[in-house]
Amino acid sequence: MRIGLDAMGGDFAPRSPVQGALAVLPALPADVQLVLYGQRAAIEAEAASAGGVPPGIELVDCPEVVLMEDHPALAMRQKPHSSIAVGLQHLAEGRLDAYISAGSTGAVTVGSIQILKLFEGLHRPAIAGVYPVEDKQVLILDCGANTDSKPEYLVEFAYIGHAYMKAVYGLENPRVGLLNIGEEPSKGNQLAKETHAMLQKHGHTLNFVGNVEGWDLNRYAADVFVCDGFTGNILMKMVEGYYPYLKKILPYTPELEQLNFERVSGLPLLGVQGNVIIGHGSASPQSIGHLVHNAQDLVRSGLVTSLPPLVSGIWKAEATQ
Amino acid sequence: MRIGLDAMGGDFAPRSPVQGALAVLPALPADVQLVLYGQRAAIEAEAASAGGVPPGIELVDCPEVVLMEDHPALAMRQKPHSSIAVGLQHLAEGRLDAYISAGSTGAVTVGSIQILKLFEGLHRPAIAGVYPVEDKQVLILDCGANTDSKPEYLVEFAYIGHAYMKAVYGLENPRVGLLNIGEEPSKGNQLAKETHAMLQKHGHTLNFVGNVEGWDLNRYAADVFVCDGFTGNILMKMVEGYYPYLKKILPYTPELEQLNFERVSGLPLLGVQGNVIIGHGSASPQSIGHLVHNAQDLVRSGLVTSLPPLVSGIWKAEATQ
Repeated sequence: MRIGLDAMGGDFAPRSPVQGALAVLPALPADVQLVLYGQRAAIEAEAASAGGVPPGIELVDCPEVVLMEDHPALAMRQKPHSSIAVGLQHLAEGRLDAYISAGSTGAVTVGSIQILKLFEGLHRPAIAGVYPVEDKQVLILDCGANTDSKPEYLVEFAYIGHAYMKAVYGLENPRVGLLNIGEEPSKGNQLAKETHAMLQKHGHTLNFVGNVEGWDLNRYAADVFVCDGFTGNILMKMVEGYYPYLKKILPYTPELEQLNFERVSGLPLLGVQGNVIIGHGSASPQSIGHLVHNAQDLVRSGLVTSLPPLVSGIWKAEATQ
Repeated sequence: MRIGLDAMGGDFAPRSPVQGALAVLPALPADVQLVLYGQRAAIEAEAASAGGVPPGIELVDCPEVVLMEDHPALAMRQKPHSSIAVGLQHLAEGRLDAYISAGSTGAVTVGSIQILKLFEGLHRPAIAGVYPVEDKQVLILDCGANTDSKPEYLVEFAYIGHAYMKAVYGLENPRVGLLNIGEEPSKGNQLAKETHAMLQKHGHTLNFVGNVEGWDLNRYAADVFVCDGFTGNILMKMVEGYYPYLKKILPYTPELEQLNFERVSGLPLLGVQGNVIIGHGSASPQSIGHLVHNAQDLVRSGLVTSLPPLVSGIWKAEATQ
C-alpha cells in the first residue's frame, strides 16, 4: 500500500507533515510505503535535524505550491506541478492508494473532482467530519465541499456516509439522520423539508431515522448526520474551536483528550474515485500521524471499490418505489 | 416593573416555572412584581408543598394550554385563553413590562408577531442566543425564529443584535460578524455572499468586522454573530447539548459551570414591540430564576424604546450611501 502525503499543506507546513511523517514511520506495517510530495529543498531542510529524509520515505519533488489565496477552480491548471496536483494525479494513475493533504480544502476538493472524477451517478462530493462521542464516532457530512446544496445532493451524501460507516467502522446498518431544527418532517428550511421527503423514500435501504437536532450529536442519536456544506462547515469548526477553549478554561484531566477532534481523524473527501483525506489546516505532527493511520484504514476498508454499484443504484431505487 | 411568567411552558411545566418563581421571589427588588400565567389548579397544586402561591406572586388564570404539537400560526386564534396568548396580550396592553415563556418557540414567536407586532421597518424578528465565552457574552442571532432567510433580514438582525449588546451589556460599539465558512468576502453560500455585500455598506454604523467562522465563537472574535435561523438553531442546540455531555464524561470541577449555556440567559425575541424572553425547553427551576433576572435587565436597558428610531433608519442609511 502506498500512501501519499502533501508536505506543503496546512498552516504549519512543511514542518507538521514532515515531522509527522518521520514520527509515524517506525509504526508503519511493512507493506505500507509513505510518499512525501512537495518542494525537495524545503522537505530536506525540515528533515535535516533528524538526519535527513530516511530511506523508508519516498520523496516526489513538486516545485509549485498551492497557496490558500489561489482560486480553487484554477489551481490545478495554473500549478500542475504542485504537490496537490501531482499527488492526485499519482492517485488517479494507481501509483498511490490514498492521498492526504492539509492544504487548501477548496483546491483539494476541486482538484479531486477534476483529476480523480466523481463516481458516475453522483452530483457532488462531500467532505465528511468524524466527530467523537465517547468511544464511538458520528459522521457529519457535508462539512464544506459545497456551499449551496440541493436535496438530491444530500440524499447522495446519506448513501455515501452510510457506506463509509459500514466499511470503515464496521457498523452493520448505520443510522442516518437529517440535521434539522425540529423532529417533525414538516420542520426546517426549504432544503431540509424537501430532503426529508426524499430520504423517506430511501428508508428501506438507508436506515433513515428522521430529523436529528444539534443536541443529538452528543446524544449519539444517529451514526450519520446529513446536512448542507454551509451548516456542516460551521458546526465542524465550532467543534474544532471547542477543544482548545476547554483546555484553556478547565483544569487538565486525561478525559479532556476525548474531545480532541483532531485526534480522531481527518476529513475524508467522499464521492471521488480515490481515497482522499483532507487534514485540518491546523494539523500538528501528531495529527498527521493519525491521518496516515486513517488512510490505511480507508484503503483496507475497500470503500472505494464498494461505492460504484451503490452509487449507480441510488436513483434507480427511488424509481422502483 | 411587572414581569409575566408562563407557568405552562417547557418540558417540566408547571413544575419548573412555579418552583423557579417561588425560589426567585425573595431575591426580587421591591419594585418588581412577578405574575404567573397558567391553569390556576395546576399552579396551586404545584405550589401546595411550599404552602401555596405566596401573596408576592400574582396569578392570572389561563384555562387553555398551547401544546408543542399545536400549529404555531393557529395557536393564538385557537387558544386565545392560553398562557401565551393572555401574557402577550397583557404585555401589548402595557400591563406587563416583559413576558417569559419556555413553551413552544414557534407559538411564542408567531404570537408575538400577531399580538405585539414588529417594529415598523422590520421584515422579521430574530431569536437571539447568548453564548458565554469566559466572562464575556457573544450574541448569536437568528437562533430559529426563521427557517429560510433573505439578506435584508440578516442586515436587520445585525442592527438589533448590535443594539442589544449595547443596551443590555453596555458595550460601546459591539463588533458584528457574519457567520460564514471562510474569511474572504467571496466565501459562503448565496445568502452569506449577498449579506456580506450588504453589511459592508452599513459598516459605518454597525462596526462590521467581516466574516467569522465556527471556531471564532470561542475565540470571542465578534460580539454579535449574525446567521440565518436554520444555522443558528442547530449551533445553539449543539452548544446546549455540550454541557450535559461534558458533565457526563469529565470529572466535575467548578469551572465546568462556565459552560452551562442555560445559566447565562434565555433567548430574547428581538424585533417585536415588547420584551419577550424565550426559555430553553429544558429549563430548570434555577434557570427560570435566571430568566426573571434577564427580564429585569432587558426592561431596565430600555432596548425596546431605543429600537424604533434605529430600525426606521436601517434602509434609509443605505439609500444615502
